[in-house]
Amino acid sequence: MTPDIRIVLIKTWHPGNIGAVARAMKNMGLYKLYLVDPLDFPSEEATSRSGQATDILENAVVVSELSEAINDCSLVIGTSARDRSISLPALTAEQCAEKAMHEQQAAPVAIVFGRERMGLLNEEIQQCHFQVNIDANPDYPVLNLSQAVQIICYELFKSSSKPPADGPEDAYPLHKELTQFQQHLESTTKAMGFINLNHPGQTLELMQAIFRRARLSRKDLSIMRGFLSSIDKKLDS
Amino acid sequence: MTPDIRIVLIKTWHPGNIGAVARAMKNMGLYKLYLVDPLDFPSEEATSRSGQATDILENAVVVSELSEAINDCSLVIGTSARDRSISLPALTAEQCAEKAMHEQQAAPVAIVFGRERMGLLNEEIQQCHFQVNIDANPDYPVLNLSQAVQIICYELFKSSSKPPADGPEDAYPLHKELTQFQQHLESTTKAMGFINLNHPGQTLELMQAIFRRARLSRKDLSIMRGFLSSIDKKLDS
Repeated sequence: MTPDIRIVLIKTWHPGNIGAVARAMKNMGLYKLYLVDPLDFPSEEATSRSGQATDILENAVVVSELSEAINDCSLVIGTSARDRSISLPALTAEQCAEKAMHEQQAAPVAIVFGRERMGLLNEEIQQCHFQVNIDANPDYPVLNLSQAVQIICYELFKSSSKPPADGPEDAYPLHKELTQFQQHLESTTKAMGFINLNHPGQTLELMQAIFRRARLSRKDLSIMRGFLSSIDKKLDS
Repeated sequence: MTPDIRIVLIKTWHPGNIGAVARAMKNMGLYKLYLVDPLDFPSEEATSRSGQATDILENAVVVSELSEAINDCSLVIGTSARDRSISLPALTAEQCAEKAMHEQQAAPVAIVFGRERMGLLNEEIQQCHFQVNIDANPDYPVLNLSQAVQIICYELFKSSSKPPADGPEDAYPLHKELTQFQQHLESTTKAMGFINLNHPGQTLELMQAIFRRARLSRKDLSIMRGFLSSIDKKLDS
């Protein structure tokens, strides 16, 4: 069974890297590639570097924003979020594979790779639940994009051949449901005047980060939505 | 401490792959690259794909035969020796890394990668003690050369951060010492008429394969050399 795990590449610059990623994926039994605003795709160079993985390129989903690629996912893992102001809980490649293989049983999982030189932007990291860091030589830790994908997919393949762990004890909400909650949080905190519309500061962002870090379950989310709704009612009355 | 492990590439066709291999190595803290009869090296494409690993390309050792690249090694591991008449004991990438990290404490270790399309020839496999197979999708198991190197080097790096195992209990002979023994075996078996010079058949090859598979220790080798010498003396008297 093909695991329900997708590889998401953001604004890839070299089409050759897209082809090499497709090959690396297929070598490890993964088939779902999402491309967020690629510079040059489809392209001959991508096809020539993909070996016998042209099917992955043909079926690749091209979107313009990261959110479109992950809306139906319940677990989103971003790569190499070094030195960022908002830090996510970190996983090794092996831990990333175990978590992804476990959770894809319940809902799609996305592993997100940033631009070749820039990596992920803060606004993209904010849409991830975890970061994965590939252990590497501190003197030169920057892997080529397709090599980083290869290692992640290799660990996923290794993990897929292990006996499956127990199913998730409590299902997680989809990305779009969590986004709706964050929007609800924003509207409620603003309506009640807790966030000053003229001087919003960082308060809302920090609150939203708390709920990302907490990895809300469906039940948690339902409780929190109910809490916000009860505040809304007080404001209306 | 940099592990005493070298990557050996045989007759690489694409110079870009050589560059990508250099980067993959440095990302994982390996620095010794040997190139056996590369088609096009040095080359601009290799340099451009190597990122910040140009030092590895500059220090790469170019030789014309595999034996020159491994003569001073005591453990030689070949990659992807599928469907060969002479099979070697197989390791996973993880086992390969553990063995290599363990044995490099005593003498240099070589990990050998074949041509892009052809892999290793039988005469090259015969110079290896083990083969390493990277677990992959049975529908498309053929990894790009630099991606295969990346996974092996990644496992080596992971293994290097584990606490070291005990030192080798019994040191292994160098490749050239084993080669001398195999030559001794040939001369003795021929001199005694066991190998018929007119109809040699496969007997000698099969005998030599036995001693490769047996992974002779220094002590074993000394005993076997003594055994052959005592036969030689009988023949002289």
